[in-house]
Amino acid sequence: MKGSSRNLSLMTDLYELTMMNGYHALGTSERTAVFDVFFRHAGQISYAVAAGLEQVAEYIQNLHFDDDDIEYLGREAGLTEDFLRTLKDFKFTGDIYSVPEGTIVFPNEPILVVRAPLSQAQLIEPAILNIINHQTLIATKASKVKMSAGRAAVSEFGLRRAQGPDAGIYGARASVIGGCSGTSNVLSGRLFDIPIKGTMAHSWIMSFDSELEAFRKFAEIYPDNTLLLVDTYDTLRSGVPNAIKVFDELKARGKKPIGIRLDSGDLAYLSKKARKMLDDAGHNDAIIFASCDLDEFVISSLNEQGARIDAYGVGTRLITSENMPSLGGVYKLSELTENGVRVPKIKISDTQEKITNPGFKTLYRVYDGDGMAFADLIALNDEKIDTTKPLKLTHPTMRWKSTILENYTVRKLLEPVFEKGKLVRKMPKLSEIAEYNRKEKGTFWDEYLRNVNPEIFKVDLSDDLYELKSKLIAEHTGGNRK
Amino acid sequence: MKGSSRNLSLMTDLYELTMMNGYHALGTSERTAVFDVFFRHAGQISYAVAAGLEQVAEYIQNLHFDDDDIEYLGREAGLTEDFLRTLKDFKFTGDIYSVPEGTIVFPNEPILVVRAPLSQAQLIEPAILNIINHQTLIATKASKVKMSAGRAAVSEFGLRRAQGPDAGIYGARASVIGGCSGTSNVLSGRLFDIPIKGTMAHSWIMSFDSELEAFRKFAEIYPDNTLLLVDTYDTLRSGVPNAIKVFDELKARGKKPIGIRLDSGDLAYLSKKARKMLDDAGHNDAIIFASCDLDEFVISSLNEQGARIDAYGVGTRLITSENMPSLGGVYKLSELTENGVRVPKIKISDTQEKITNPGFKTLYRVYDGDGMAFADLIALNDEKIDTTKPLKLTHPTMRWKSTILENYTVRKLLEPVFEKGKLVRKMPKLSEIAEYNRKEKGTFWDEYLRNVNPEIFKVDLSDDLYELKSKLIAEHTGGNRK
Repeated sequence: MKGSSRNLSLMTDLYELTMMNGYHALGTSERTAVFDVFFRHAGQISYAVAAGLEQVAEYIQNLHFDDDDIEYLGREAGLTEDFLRTLKDFKFTGDIYSVPEGTIVFPNEPILVVRAPLSQAQLIEPAILNIINHQTLIATKASKVKMSAGRAAVSEFGLRRAQGPDAGIYGARASVIGGCSGTSNVLSGRLFDIPIKGTMAHSWIMSFDSELEAFRKFAEIYPDNTLLLVDTYDTLRSGVPNAIKVFDELKARGKKPIGIRLDSGDLAYLSKKARKMLDDAGHNDAIIFASCDLDEFVISSLNEQGARIDAYGVGTRLITSENMPSLGGVYKLSELTENGVRVPKIKISDTQEKITNPGFKTLYRVYDGDGMAFADLIALNDEKIDTTKPLKLTHPTMRWKSTILENYTVRKLLEPVFEKGKLVRKMPKLSEIAEYNRKEKGTFWDEYLRNVNPEIFKVDLSDDLYELKSKLIAEHTGGNRK
Repeated sequence: MKGSSRNLSLMTDLYELTMMNGYHALGTSERTAVFDVFFRHAGQISYAVAAGLEQVAEYIQNLHFDDDDIEYLGREAGLTEDFLRTLKDFKFTGDIYSVPEGTIVFPNEPILVVRAPLSQAQLIEPAILNIINHQTLIATKASKVKMSAGRAAVSEFGLRRAQGPDAGIYGARASVIGGCSGTSNVLSGRLFDIPIKGTMAHSWIMSFDSELEAFRKFAEIYPDNTLLLVDTYDTLRSGVPNAIKVFDELKARGKKPIGIRLDSGDLAYLSKKARKMLDDAGHNDAIIFASCDLDEFVISSLNEQGARIDAYGVGTRLITSENMPSLGGVYKLSELTENGVRVPKIKISDTQEKITNPGFKTLYRVYDGDGMAFADLIALNDEKIDTTKPLKLTHPTMRWKSTILENYTVRKLLEPVFEKGKLVRKMPKLSEIAEYNRKEKGTFWDEYLRNVNPEIFKVDLSDDLYELKSKLIAEHTGGNRK
């Protein structure tokens, strides 16, 4: 039943194995390599909610190749017998650092760092990216939806439109990290202790001779959980009046109805009309739950129109992150030990923001005197910040933009997860991760996290890192503009 | 190792269990219900390539509830002990009909039909939709990409950006059904016998002192598989000239280089320049493989510009179906047996195309005298088509639009998959499904399948079905326009 029992060791791109086989032939497999995971600034993403680390850890711990796997690779992958033999005892022996799940993170900063023998670090690239890209994407989308919903609770309802089982299962998990408080997906509920939500579909209503009978039977069976779907035939002429009749009957039996669910039509208009009908009938406590093609933009619009909605079920557009269905996280070599010497590596591009940050790095979050997040600082791993002295923060490319902070604190965001192949981090419960994310959000001014035109949060480079980067760029381009 | 070993029985929406528990309490669980799976016309989709049936069949065959599952449901799902006891021996005992995987299908027609005891049919709704929606979406996207690529081979390269492991694993499978000829994903290669593709990443190049050395070492290790990634530093000034040097050396050793890979920059310009450089150096056989943010639209544009690309690797935009990341397939009740009588069911909507087609139905494809697909015909399951007589085909809503065909053949697209819970269909190999899809495409005029402004393929309703639908609409609305 545990997600952890699946062996995804072959879930890699062939070229990783091809390169591993090559490094083995050259005797360079064991050189220590450092790879950074980060995502680039993209249209819809100004910040992200990191998620997926627990599944990465499970994947790493399960890494191994069965005889059948090796036999398959021998037949289909063009690898040498000698290399294939090394896979028999393969296990991960490196270090992994990561921001904790639920952390608010920004473009271009390392959110996970792998420091391991080159060959191992290559193998795990696709699975790490797959898991982190997916869950971070959905946690971020959920965060945006919850931002629009305000105090209204949001449940994740997207299983049937998710891109395969895992997208449903882990998408629900990520949604909770980002701010959802429940899911319709029972398996996710079971795996991650998420409250499960749901009452009836249109087919329940259609299986009775009348809507009223369908409501009545439901209320008889679930007197404490009577949330009635009112849009099967005609929301305002049939659904809400029938629901009110059944709520009256429930009250007469001393029970408290939950409310109604709107699943089609104009949710602003219908919710206002339905609210009035419920209030007029004395059911002020009955909530209005809404679903139907929702996302952060539709919910903001409903709020503007004064919709009277108490809770949302959000499906397709959340579980697929419809307006941006991939995060685009990458995994880039930043250091390689050559003949015992750590050599920083850079990938040059004509597009300035695509030039990578070289070296084994770490990531600090800098807070101002009020405890509010002020900037993130990418630094070389050996650099120390002396917090008794003022801190100079400088823009990563426009170095004339700088600030000096006197009263501040710093927090190292990248924490050890694996050390020499051993898991050293206790994975928190999902509810703890969600709570941590709520607290994280409290340390950011709303301006950075709003859904429309957010202010760009500062992600700066330390002077040492900037100098190293400049030196390597000069070495590689040598004034040779493309 | 087989995908089939996972137990996804709890992968359902809570409301299905809530309704099942209700039907159990009312003694109506066993009534035979018919549900249709279909998708609606949506912006980007004029046709789809059906996919996912094999995984649906595995899911159905594995359905069962462990004691732990039942214990969890007892604690969290608000179900009665009496109902939970029925889950101990739960298995699927109904019928499932489906179009074969790889079939070209159209909006509003039933592509899968479940006929089973009501309670069972509810349980399996979310998993069936999840699997069919996902794989059909990706097979369709692959079909569109392949349509643009023409004779150039397309490989699926999207694992790292897929929405979780399954989206990568089954997305690769679906891509092959739609027209891809390989994948980078080794696990998919192993599970479904897909040719696996890939040579080197930028990190290979960066791990050597020079690009030339990186190329040379690769060619030494893989003299028969030398496809060189040429864009790490400067494609035309460094990458291609270095590749040519290594190709010359390979040829001198009697080996045949494969070619180069472009992964950034302007692929049209670079491919034309690189082609000329390769040709001038006598490497006319060396292919140009291109990747980098590709989809059907970019590939069409590259063709227009006369790009010289022989094969494509398509990643993010294929594996997420980026411009439309969900298919929106639904599962609607169309018939319910009440007191031994089969009662057709309809869901009314103010939007004409959202009104469902009632009754237990089947689907015919009608071919003209030349064997080309002419129309699909949705009919009631008991209707017979007498092909010795002319066939009248009528538009589903605009009934004045009709055609009489004299010389035609018909084929029933919905085939039995499960009968009384037993799998009765032998699942074809993936390569057979892909071949079937290629043949399917050959029976359609290009006009129906083109990527831009396709002609709408006729999906008609039989007279009997139309009359039944009209009668039910009149009964439900009774002239009462909303």
